[in-house]
Amino acid sequence: MNFTSDNCYGAAPEMLDALAKANAGPAASYGEDPISARLNALFAEIFEREVAVFPVISGTAANALSLSTLVPPHGAIVCHAQSHIAVDECGAVEMATHGAKLISIDRPDGKLTPGAVEAAIAPIQKGVVHHTQPSAVSITQSTEIGTVYRAEEIAAIGEVARGHGMKLHVDGARFANAVAFLKCAPADITWRAGVHAMSFGATKNGALGAEAVIFFDKSAIGDFAYRRKKSGHLLSKMRFVSAQLEAYLTDGRWLGHASRANALATQLAEGCRGIKDAEIVAPVEANAVFIRLPNSAVSRLRKAGAQFYDWMPPKDGINLIRLVTSFATPDEDVTNFISIARG
Amino acid sequence: MNFTSDNCYGAAPEMLDALAKANAGPAASYGEDPISARLNALFAEIFEREVAVFPVISGTAANALSLSTLVPPHGAIVCHAQSHIAVDECGAVEMATHGAKLISIDRPDGKLTPGAVEAAIAPIQKGVVHHTQPSAVSITQSTEIGTVYRAEEIAAIGEVARGHGMKLHVDGARFANAVAFLKCAPADITWRAGVHAMSFGATKNGALGAEAVIFFDKSAIGDFAYRRKKSGHLLSKMRFVSAQLEAYLTDGRWLGHASRANALATQLAEGCRGIKDAEIVAPVEANAVFIRLPNSAVSRLRKAGAQFYDWMPPKDGINLIRLVTSFATPDEDVTNFISIARG
Amino acid sequence: MNFTSDNCYGAAPEMLDALAKANAGPAASYGEDPISARLNALFAEIFEREVAVFPVISGTAANALSLSTLVPPHGAIVCHAQSHIAVDECGAVEMATHGAKLISIDRPDGKLTPGAVEAAIAPIQKGVVHHTQPSAVSITQSTEIGTVYRAEEIAAIGEVARGHGMKLHVDGARFANAVAFLKCAPADITWRAGVHAMSFGATKNGALGAEAVIFFDKSAIGDFAYRRKKSGHLLSKMRFVSAQLEAYLTDGRWLGHASRANALATQLAEGCRGIKDAEIVAPVEANAVFIRLPNSAVSRLRKAGAQFYDWMPPKDGINLIRLVTSFATPDEDVTNFISIARG
Amino acid sequence: MNFTSDNCYGAAPEMLDALAKANAGPAASYGEDPISARLNALFAEIFEREVAVFPVISGTAANALSLSTLVPPHGAIVCHAQSHIAVDECGAVEMATHGAKLISIDRPDGKLTPGAVEAAIAPIQKGVVHHTQPSAVSITQSTEIGTVYRAEEIAAIGEVARGHGMKLHVDGARFANAVAFLKCAPADITWRAGVHAMSFGATKNGALGAEAVIFFDKSAIGDFAYRRKKSGHLLSKMRFVSAQLEAYLTDGRWLGHASRANALATQLAEGCRGIKDAEIVAPVEANAVFIRLPNSAVSRLRKAGAQFYDWMPPKDGINLIRLVTSFATPDEDVTNFISIARG
Repeated sequence: MNFTSDNCYGAAPEMLDALAKANAGPAASYGEDPISARLNALFAEIFEREVAVFPVISGTAANALSLSTLVPPHGAIVCHAQSHIAVDECGAVEMATHGAKLISIDRPDGKLTPGAVEAAIAPIQKGVVHHTQPSAVSITQSTEIGTVYRAEEIAAIGEVARGHGMKLHVDGARFANAVAFLKCAPADITWRAGVHAMSFGATKNGALGAEAVIFFDKSAIGDFAYRRKKSGHLLSKMRFVSAQLEAYLTDGRWLGHASRANALATQLAEGCRGIKDAEIVAPVEANAVFIRLPNSAVSRLRKAGAQFYDWMPPKDGINLIRLVTSFATPDEDVTNFISIARG
Repeated sequence: MNFTSDNCYGAAPEMLDALAKANAGPAASYGEDPISARLNALFAEIFEREVAVFPVISGTAANALSLSTLVPPHGAIVCHAQSHIAVDECGAVEMATHGAKLISIDRPDGKLTPGAVEAAIAPIQKGVVHHTQPSAVSITQSTEIGTVYRAEEIAAIGEVARGHGMKLHVDGARFANAVAFLKCAPADITWRAGVHAMSFGATKNGALGAEAVIFFDKSAIGDFAYRRKKSGHLLSKMRFVSAQLEAYLTDGRWLGHASRANALATQLAEGCRGIKDAEIVAPVEANAVFIRLPNSAVSRLRKAGAQFYDWMPPKDGINLIRLVTSFATPDEDVTNFISIARG
Repeated sequence: MNFTSDNCYGAAPEMLDALAKANAGPAASYGEDPISARLNALFAEIFEREVAVFPVISGTAANALSLSTLVPPHGAIVCHAQSHIAVDECGAVEMATHGAKLISIDRPDGKLTPGAVEAAIAPIQKGVVHHTQPSAVSITQSTEIGTVYRAEEIAAIGEVARGHGMKLHVDGARFANAVAFLKCAPADITWRAGVHAMSFGATKNGALGAEAVIFFDKSAIGDFAYRRKKSGHLLSKMRFVSAQLEAYLTDGRWLGHASRANALATQLAEGCRGIKDAEIVAPVEANAVFIRLPNSAVSRLRKAGAQFYDWMPPKDGINLIRLVTSFATPDEDVTNFISIARG
Repeated sequence: MNFTSDNCYGAAPEMLDALAKANAGPAASYGEDPISARLNALFAEIFEREVAVFPVISGTAANALSLSTLVPPHGAIVCHAQSHIAVDECGAVEMATHGAKLISIDRPDGKLTPGAVEAAIAPIQKGVVHHTQPSAVSITQSTEIGTVYRAEEIAAIGEVARGHGMKLHVDGARFANAVAFLKCAPADITWRAGVHAMSFGATKNGALGAEAVIFFDKSAIGDFAYRRKKSGHLLSKMRFVSAQLEAYLTDGRWLGHASRANALATQLAEGCRGIKDAEIVAPVEANAVFIRLPNSAVSRLRKAGAQFYDWMPPKDGINLIRLVTSFATPDEDVTNFISIARG
């Protein structure tokens, strides 16, 4: 019963097949291979427009490199206080940008809003060199607490960003979970809503280690290719990363995996409703459940081997815990968890 | 007939087996998994002493991160003019160190010598803030032109480095080829010779993408773990990188692969001897052959589909080309190449 | 009537005298001159202990360089949300540290407290590479809103810092104003209270451009001298900066200037008390007055040529303005201001 | 008899007058003052075209900040092996650019040539991400060994730079000495010859600490203003730096000072001709003399109190020394030196 994170699960079977298939014979290195060459077209189909795709091997790399391309050293990036770039990447963005600043906004549902963005940058005087200048908004889709931005929410943020000359970036480490939930066109929650670039995640949803930085706006690509190389993120045998991305997008597997993970999270949440003192603290829209449970239930679960994070230190006999499901979480883990939690 | 680089060949079969095996069930992420936990002991056995091992996924990352740990922003790093860090990593070391300087020495056999290192740093006034301060020597083993440092050559450089308070770093992207050639204890050409840290490569010799930064001296580890994270090089599913390294070191496979690659290079060189106007320009000790061939031979080879790099622009009817063999280069590619080259 | 900032006033007369005197004959460059050589002893006397002194020419340089010496790239620095390093230095600290993070705490009196520091770093897991690690606390003395830390307040923060292995840094751009107010030994509010390093300002209090970075703890000096050079802050004719610092500390001028500035601020505050709807929003302890005034008074003042900053956009007919006095603010500017404000 | 460097001499009298004059009353800070506002027009007159002028306080700052504006992190800068940016600024350019690389060319007369630039960048494959890309050429005028580029020499380098899409930068720490020697229009050896930006020095020629970064091409200004602030080089009392630059350019003082320094150098060189074993090693065109003298002469000079640098370690009884004259070097120091040297 491992609910600590979706990245605790390994690779989906098609990934290993894809690696084996990609392994046939020699191929040009550093992304000049035929599989990598197919990615632009593949993503173009998914996003219904021409895009520029750059595979990398971690979400931190995808975020830091894409933001360092969009944002100058004197820039400021508005993000959520719980966002991965703000709290879980050891200041990767600050280093990659050579000193840009994150402006963190804390809001209960994990989402930024146009008003919150406006308020965050209001104190900054435009064009005044003493202040880092608002240069980008970065949102996470699905969010760090398992909620999902609607297309119109993103479009509204996109409009604010555009009005201030800021770029809009999406950390899509769990983008598949968002699309699977919304059942929308990926275009609707990206470039049609004003997104310039995104980190498109596959690792948490079945890949071994594969993410893609996608630029929707060619003018935003800048020196990304050099930054990827200069930071050690251009792999010589890139075909093996590209092969994962190709397998991921083929036959809708990415959405299939995400749908399964989402469904398990919903099942977990539903199954725990009605437990005395239990409280689901955020809408369960993707593959995470944030739930308050009494200590007694938490103790029983841990004793039974369930793994998950305390999201806050326990208080008044209640634990706020995070449960994350994945494409590979066993069904019985979910049913067992519920049954033990209910006591 | 692909002799462009050893990284044009894919993965050795045991690598895919190792990935499949590593894929069983959930595991802690970010290198807290059991496979990663076994690496220190595994490398300790290879190197006959306790070491600290940090897997990463590219040679550029291994070099830039290890050197940024060893060298302050005001440091200078002595290296060969043809070294990967000097000419093929887009200034990765300069960025990761926040502005350290490479001092490049050009010497015909691809190797630094104690005298060359001394001469390179002689103009620098110690402790004078106007000058970047000599902080590390970085050598490549086997070198960029296919030669191999002997243990005593490294020890002599190590002594110079130590005398100046400099760290000694090895770019071991093709370390296996060097060990296979020397048939020595890995310890003899690393820590026993004064090496503080190294980039231990597996990618060019059979892995999909796996290198290990190894610190022989615990006091040199510094903030490496944070630097790896901050640069996006700590993978969530690190077990898949560690599994490659484990498979690589098991049953002497790393040396087996390297021996085969070395033998093919020797065979190539031997086979081309005696061709009119042909000249092997550097001792063939590892898996690369630098050879001058007449245009006519080069044309025939290219027409027949042979792939390789011109190392210099052709001159006086002669091409200086580089041929690199790998663990997976087909035997018949070598014999075909020779036969066509001989005309 | 210029109350926009103390840095709008030029140089105190003794500064120009000192420059003229320093100008006699040739002298060794880059701080090897006799005046610079006297600074350590001079500051040692002021601080009652051996110190290491490094002159620079701006407060931003002093802060960024000292903090980049104290804090690694993966570090986090706790500071006030209104601090200069957080909002007025365009991310200088983030760049100089190569990506450290500022953790900003907003509190009404401009001061950090031990509890606030503890709360700010509580969510950070120690030794976990995903999180920037608490490495320094930076306080401003006197604060950005004109309040002054008492010795015991700093000591309490120093204790918290020490408990977490963090360094304590003081941005002392207006340090003289604090000492003049407290009438304490400079030692009491620095090293005796656990301060490791400080930016000791002279520019705002009479110099043309002169600040000193002071290390109280020799082990904290690190590579500061190289960082100063590498960032272009080691001046060839450093004697002219050192001469300003010497003149500043001689005969207690630094405290004389600050006392005068402080007294004028108090006079301003006292003079405005009792104006209908006026409200002094923070204790006037140094040389700044933050006061709410009705629009009508503000309009009259601006019409009469008074210059000052709106601290917030006007609201409900009331303006919150900032008034800063300096060593050179004319007495009559203060009396005029009061008289016009009172209407 | 101080011939160590021109920066060992203090300030010209008009500098102190200018500071005193600039000191009258309050003024807007951070370069918003009236003196700073006059600089663009003043430099425009000198250079016969609109320019953008940014005062800073050190040559290292001028070079590092201007080059970091012209050159991306993945850029390479071609410069002379003896250039200040290459050997005397502790890697300031590498840090400010976030990792760009200097390509140093050693040539005997201190000058780059079009052919040397072409040869230096020839091995770099354009658009290939593994290689830092040729982005700027930086020349020093007058050079580090006291020679002066002719207008046509710069134009020829400018043409090569333009042909490769590189910017042309001038380190003009001793620009006045070059103009005084050539008696040319400053425009002829800058923008008319293809220069995009320069570091215009005043410090070595009479200022206390004042340099100007000048952009001839508005499109090259980029984010310079932010970089200056972010690196701590925007002074609050900028008027005092601007006042120095204004005094410097007024009434042709800059050229007067430089002419005097140049003449003294010529006098030194002429006076030493004919000394047995003496050899002037580079044309004396500006204010430096590089001369080989026998040990006996050097010993006599040092005994008599003369100060200068050994440029190389003494060899075969001969010392290669550097003598630098300045606007303020006493005439009798020159005559004394000659007389003692002649023995």
